[in-house]
Amino acid sequence: MGEFELIRTFFAAAPCAQGGEGIALGIGDDCALLALPPGEQLAISTDTLVAGVHFADPCDPFLLGQRSLAVAVSDLAAMGAHPLAFTLALTTPTVDADWLQRYAQGLNAMALNCGVGLVGGDTTRGPLSLTLTVFGRVPAGLALTRHGAQPGDLLCVGGELGNAAGALPLVLNQRTAPAAIAEPLLAHYWSPQPQLALGLALRGKATSAMDVSDGLLADCEHIAKASAVRLVIERQRLPLSSALLAFLGDDEARSAALSGGDDYVLAFTLPPAELVPLQADGWPVQVVGRVEQGQGVVLVDPAGQDITPVIRGYQHFRETH
Amino acid sequence: MGEFELIRTFFAAAPCAQGGEGIALGIGDDCALLALPPGEQLAISTDTLVAGVHFADPCDPFLLGQRSLAVAVSDLAAMGAHPLAFTLALTTPTVDADWLQRYAQGLNAMALNCGVGLVGGDTTRGPLSLTLTVFGRVPAGLALTRHGAQPGDLLCVGGELGNAAGALPLVLNQRTAPAAIAEPLLAHYWSPQPQLALGLALRGKATSAMDVSDGLLADCEHIAKASAVRLVIERQRLPLSSALLAFLGDDEARSAALSGGDDYVLAFTLPPAELVPLQADGWPVQVVGRVEQGQGVVLVDPAGQDITPVIRGYQHFRETH
Repeated sequence: MGEFELIRTFFAAAPCAQGGEGIALGIGDDCALLALPPGEQLAISTDTLVAGVHFADPCDPFLLGQRSLAVAVSDLAAMGAHPLAFTLALTTPTVDADWLQRYAQGLNAMALNCGVGLVGGDTTRGPLSLTLTVFGRVPAGLALTRHGAQPGDLLCVGGELGNAAGALPLVLNQRTAPAAIAEPLLAHYWSPQPQLALGLALRGKATSAMDVSDGLLADCEHIAKASAVRLVIERQRLPLSSALLAFLGDDEARSAALSGGDDYVLAFTLPPAELVPLQADGWPVQVVGRVEQGQGVVLVDPAGQDITPVIRGYQHFRETH
Repeated sequence: MGEFELIRTFFAAAPCAQGGEGIALGIGDDCALLALPPGEQLAISTDTLVAGVHFADPCDPFLLGQRSLAVAVSDLAAMGAHPLAFTLALTTPTVDADWLQRYAQGLNAMALNCGVGLVGGDTTRGPLSLTLTVFGRVPAGLALTRHGAQPGDLLCVGGELGNAAGALPLVLNQRTAPAAIAEPLLAHYWSPQPQLALGLALRGKATSAMDVSDGLLADCEHIAKASAVRLVIERQRLPLSSALLAFLGDDEARSAALSGGDDYVLAFTLPPAELVPLQADGWPVQVVGRVEQGQGVVLVDPAGQDITPVIRGYQHFRETH
């Protein structure tokens, strides 16, 4: 048995590979088999994380295991899909048993958290990278897409923005911060919590949805384009954590929230009548703007002044990957 | 729009991304959506190809496009699944428009050949590698697996073995050969033909199946283990092409067929009564051995002598990846 065959055996024995809802055949054959309830469709999303591009190398493999699965599952949340399973394509330059064990532990922790089972994948030799493909189910016609936003809808997010972007200089050891600030920011970066329950709650209510991965401004462009509407974001309404405000100050914190990326909270549009019932049920729905006729994304200050170009310039410093 | 966003737009416009059976929502949202007919299950398989490990770099991107999809779709054939769709996770160090165009052309050609549509994926910066995840459908209970082989069954393959292994020294420019020899071998390496129709024909007939990717000897171990049987391979029965025999000679050609890998023909077990009807219908079913009680894989010479250890040693020169 070759060492890469051993890795397969290792992952096949991981707790997250021990079955789950909808898994008719798991690891160990040419294909995995998933079963769906009648009337449901399969939701599929793929994300690749490359060492040195999407995460620092070396890093804590447990945290990487958590994060690599969370960012992929977040796409299921954005579609209002119920999570089922995932595959892992792991490319690694060397077979390091300790590293693999820690990575698998992080992966397992997030798989348990999200309710997904590992059903297959591939293990290959090469520069370290991870491609995770996640699977969920959603009743036909109920998936949340990017193309249903209507003028008059509210633009909402499911939680605080900018924490992961704020954490990045800490992750890269470019800055330090007291534990009370660093810990919540780093937790958000390394262990984002896919908003699966919120996605399910928004079925039949939100007119469009996506997860914020590249920054609110950039991601709202996708909804604006797919729905052929204009999205107006009110800068003063951005939900910011006290840790982020303490670390970056108000102005930089707002820029991080708008353009920082890696938030993995949901952004969605909602008819105004849906807002209060959702909030009354305890869902974390925060209004950050509105949908208008037109196109593109506009950022406004409290006076309603268009301040988009100033902020948009911030984006050019980011690598788009 | 960043350059990697441009790649996404480029692939979204590719012919293979223009819909297809079962695709309820294709490229451009957080998830793709697949619909299945009632009573069918989804078959899933993932394969990663890393530059310098699974293919020479540089190589012809058109041929790589064909091959990267074919090796993944071959796993659907091995399950008797009807092909539906695939995702592509492309990691590339630089954005080279010519390379991407040629790669997409090869991918499109194989997608058309196999009847699959591109439904999503990811594009990232990093060392060149490709992870393709393929999706098919199969009626519940009819998938061909590795675990049903019975003593008394015949061990069969769906075509010639060893051609791709024979081509490898040509691919790597380590040897040359006249065109009459080189062309058929290289065609087999760069453009393997997933045996999808054969897989469908074997539903309800073959007791186990897989595709030969790591070499017949190594892959038969998987069926032997999963089915708790012994597989006996008769060395003289291996189907070999005239090009391979001319290039390597009889002895080396048989070793390539047993241990060379990259064949992507089906290997399967069949009750004897199923053989003649399948062959009469024109299916390429070649008997190479039989299933017995016991365990493991045994190679025998025409006199029935066990010659396994001699050949098995050949495997140690192969990188298992």
